[in-house]
Amino acid sequence: MKKFDDAWRLSQVASFLCGRLVGDPDRLILGVASPEEVTQEYICVLWEKSAFRKLVKDVPVVVPLGWLEPDRIGVEVEEPKIAFAKLLSLFERPRTPKCEVHPTAMISQSAEVHPSAYIGPFCVVREGAKIANDVVLEAHVFVGKDVFIDEGTIVEPHVTLYHGVKLGKRCLIHAGASLGCEGFGFCSRDGKLVKIPQVGGLVIGDEVEVGALTSIDRGTLGDTRIGSGTKIGDCVHVGHNAQVGSNCILVAMTGIAGSAVIEDNVIMAAQSGVKDHARVGKGSIVAAKSGVTKDIPPGMMVSGFPARDHREELKIQALTQRLPEIYERLLRLERLHEGVGNEDEKGNPSKAD
Amino acid sequence: MKKFDDAWRLSQVASFLCGRLVGDPDRLILGVASPEEVTQEYICVLWEKSAFRKLVKDVPVVVPLGWLEPDRIGVEVEEPKIAFAKLLSLFERPRTPKCEVHPTAMISQSAEVHPSAYIGPFCVVREGAKIANDVVLEAHVFVGKDVFIDEGTIVEPHVTLYHGVKLGKRCLIHAGASLGCEGFGFCSRDGKLVKIPQVGGLVIGDEVEVGALTSIDRGTLGDTRIGSGTKIGDCVHVGHNAQVGSNCILVAMTGIAGSAVIEDNVIMAAQSGVKDHARVGKGSIVAAKSGVTKDIPPGMMVSGFPARDHREELKIQALTQRLPEIYERLLRLERLHEGVGNEDEKGNPSKAD
Amino acid sequence: MKKFDDAWRLSQVASFLCGRLVGDPDRLILGVASPEEVTQEYICVLWEKSAFRKLVKDVPVVVPLGWLEPDRIGVEVEEPKIAFAKLLSLFERPRTPKCEVHPTAMISQSAEVHPSAYIGPFCVVREGAKIANDVVLEAHVFVGKDVFIDEGTIVEPHVTLYHGVKLGKRCLIHAGASLGCEGFGFCSRDGKLVKIPQVGGLVIGDEVEVGALTSIDRGTLGDTRIGSGTKIGDCVHVGHNAQVGSNCILVAMTGIAGSAVIEDNVIMAAQSGVKDHARVGKGSIVAAKSGVTKDIPPGMMVSGFPARDHREELKIQALTQRLPEIYERLLRLERLHEGVGNEDEKGNPSKAD
Repeated sequence: MKKFDDAWRLSQVASFLCGRLVGDPDRLILGVASPEEVTQEYICVLWEKSAFRKLVKDVPVVVPLGWLEPDRIGVEVEEPKIAFAKLLSLFERPRTPKCEVHPTAMISQSAEVHPSAYIGPFCVVREGAKIANDVVLEAHVFVGKDVFIDEGTIVEPHVTLYHGVKLGKRCLIHAGASLGCEGFGFCSRDGKLVKIPQVGGLVIGDEVEVGALTSIDRGTLGDTRIGSGTKIGDCVHVGHNAQVGSNCILVAMTGIAGSAVIEDNVIMAAQSGVKDHARVGKGSIVAAKSGVTKDIPPGMMVSGFPARDHREELKIQALTQRLPEIYERLLRLERLHEGVGNEDEKGNPSKAD
Repeated sequence: MKKFDDAWRLSQVASFLCGRLVGDPDRLILGVASPEEVTQEYICVLWEKSAFRKLVKDVPVVVPLGWLEPDRIGVEVEEPKIAFAKLLSLFERPRTPKCEVHPTAMISQSAEVHPSAYIGPFCVVREGAKIANDVVLEAHVFVGKDVFIDEGTIVEPHVTLYHGVKLGKRCLIHAGASLGCEGFGFCSRDGKLVKIPQVGGLVIGDEVEVGALTSIDRGTLGDTRIGSGTKIGDCVHVGHNAQVGSNCILVAMTGIAGSAVIEDNVIMAAQSGVKDHARVGKGSIVAAKSGVTKDIPPGMMVSGFPARDHREELKIQALTQRLPEIYERLLRLERLHEGVGNEDEKGNPSKAD
Repeated sequence: MKKFDDAWRLSQVASFLCGRLVGDPDRLILGVASPEEVTQEYICVLWEKSAFRKLVKDVPVVVPLGWLEPDRIGVEVEEPKIAFAKLLSLFERPRTPKCEVHPTAMISQSAEVHPSAYIGPFCVVREGAKIANDVVLEAHVFVGKDVFIDEGTIVEPHVTLYHGVKLGKRCLIHAGASLGCEGFGFCSRDGKLVKIPQVGGLVIGDEVEVGALTSIDRGTLGDTRIGSGTKIGDCVHVGHNAQVGSNCILVAMTGIAGSAVIEDNVIMAAQSGVKDHARVGKGSIVAAKSGVTKDIPPGMMVSGFPARDHREELKIQALTQRLPEIYERLLRLERLHEGVGNEDEKGNPSKAD
């Protein structure tokens, strides 16, 4: 349950959400609440009929078009999830607004920092780095040599940006992420492992979100790339030279191995993985804990390990679960043939044919 | 092999552990050792008979009640693991004892820091944060706005506490953990991903331990919660709005998805996972690498993916391993029917019924 | 595509790589490029015939001995991957060369820092720590009490080295790693979890690489150990008391549970795991996402969960995938016996024998 700074009238909520008002336009709304805790002074956003039916009628709601009978109160909208995001944005704390370089930050003389940027305490900005307008570096951010951070990007505490990393506009990089670390490349010589230098870079597009404690490695020779609009969860790993498209979703604990290609609009669910050099086609969905070992065409939903068509995997899972019964049935059939079977097991050639 | 600061007599060890002494009370004990390296001047704690039998008789041991024949030497205790913990605690280095705010720490004027707290070098404490008595913040800790840290809690280096996070009493937060990061919530609009603001909080109970490089996200609207006494390993991820009960154990690399509910006393083994909105009942155990996809009743042991009753899963695993043999047996049965079978395979309807 | 600082003649490249020159020795080489982007002024290193065949003939290449017909241009070498590493090393930025302790670093008076070491901004070095010659600590590194870092080791930003950790010579520790954190040991008493103090240490050999955001815990009583030459990827976890041998490769997101033993030259692929106390024999390979639950002999390749011989696992995977077909065939056999089968299902004893 979250209170707005000021109470709103229901009519104001409806107009803010571009929705259709049902019921008393002057009802005062103090804030947003979840269905479990909502009262008549709060509003609740719903997109599942079952949750909607459980609510008492006098509680104000935001719901899809056509759901509100005249005895209800609330706002109908085209997209309730978007409306939810808009309402929640009313509580978001404004970011540290001051344009300032904290006196404890260590900025190299050859770095360029736009005067509208905020650089927090104990940040380190190395030689040749460029920080554009409206960038926010929270405390303890490390910005390596020749890094470029484009306008409006926010970097949370304890993030490491290795040398030469490029971040696009309005990105959000969460606490402790490691971007542009050397990739994991070795070759074996006389039983010892020799490091393959990683001299490529890391280029991240616009409006990318990178979760806390996520690592994305730089390329060996070319660049590792993350396309614009892609959202990456916590504790994800993206290997060297991987190419991740635009508007992808990589949920927490996903692993993308080196040189893998993730095309646009792909969803990788939690704890899933993609083998090195494998390609996941545009718009495909990889289910949680699955492992992609070879190329997946566009528009597929895959699951399991090795990942295959999800419907097939479900069939196989169901049959795997029935293995004890299947085995029993096989045994029964064998008993029906026991005489012949025994002979066979003794090594005599079967005479049945 | 670890030496005490001073040698102890065996009678003193017995009385420290509230155990029963067997053998020479004046034997000098210099420290604790593992069974592999123990000598007659050290003591070794054992709870497995097989390891006990391998030891030479003259080595002092701490073992369960009733194990020591009169020709042995050592201490019998009710709970050897507890005794082990007690003995080891004799070596633990005392924490930096001084109550001090390091001169390099940046503390907001509106933050409240109890005079008995220790704030290490390069810590940042933002506006409105409250730090209670006997709290220790090691170097490089970031404490966001309005964070509350209750008495006796220890926070190791490079931890990020986002704004508004609440930590209970006597917690231990290991290096690099990220607590209260924005959760991973997006909705899709015209092919682009729109962020759902995460305005809820994160509330952690008393005596909770959080492993190194673990991330726990804040709630979307309500709070993510971790119950008192719960122990969380390294590299774990807990998603937004998840509710984790008391005295749970989340072993390293476990993933708890958004809005999942983990009831009290649950054990999640390494690399396991729980789907969003799924519930794991009180006292249940989820085996390593398993994935919980739907509600698990209390007191179950589950394994596999999707996770099911562990005994069933073991049966299925055993049969899966026997698939090559099962397939051979099916082939043999088919050969017994080859005439009829062949017809069938040619597309003729089977006449057998 | 990466440019050298100066152009090289092909004859110089051949001599630098100790290889056999084919074609114009005076061809100017501006840098190294991948097969996709290479032009006639760059050189491309190849070890797969298929990629080689696709290239136009006038592009300079580095390839295995015996590949170059007289109409080609390039250098033949014994080991192209090693040659690739050598060429790439020409671009590597020299590390901050200056021997300096940054004025913002907080070094305890009882710590010993060799004058040739570099200590970056905001580093903290605690009492009794020893830092040998040519060590580089990038910004924001935390070095606990009595830590020892041997010559030439490089530690990237935001790394935490807990008290007493020992790092060998010429190691590379990537951003945000946590080394020597207390292990995850608890015992249960009256329904509450009691912490087992972790008083052991962590000893890391020479030329070990540790990936970004990897955690390696200290031992309970003895030491956790990582052998010389071992390379560990990002987001890996190694539990307390684990013993990892020399020249091992632990790929990203691998988990090694407490007290596990990984012998020399083992490869653990991505997202794999080893159970506590299990042993993986010398030179064995554990495939991606596999889980080792019991001892693996030397020289094996294992996969699956529980991990078994890889060829066996492949057979089982293939048959699992064919379960729908196998089930159909079982059904067909049952239909052939339907009369008898039905009786049987009604509970009548089968008369077939």
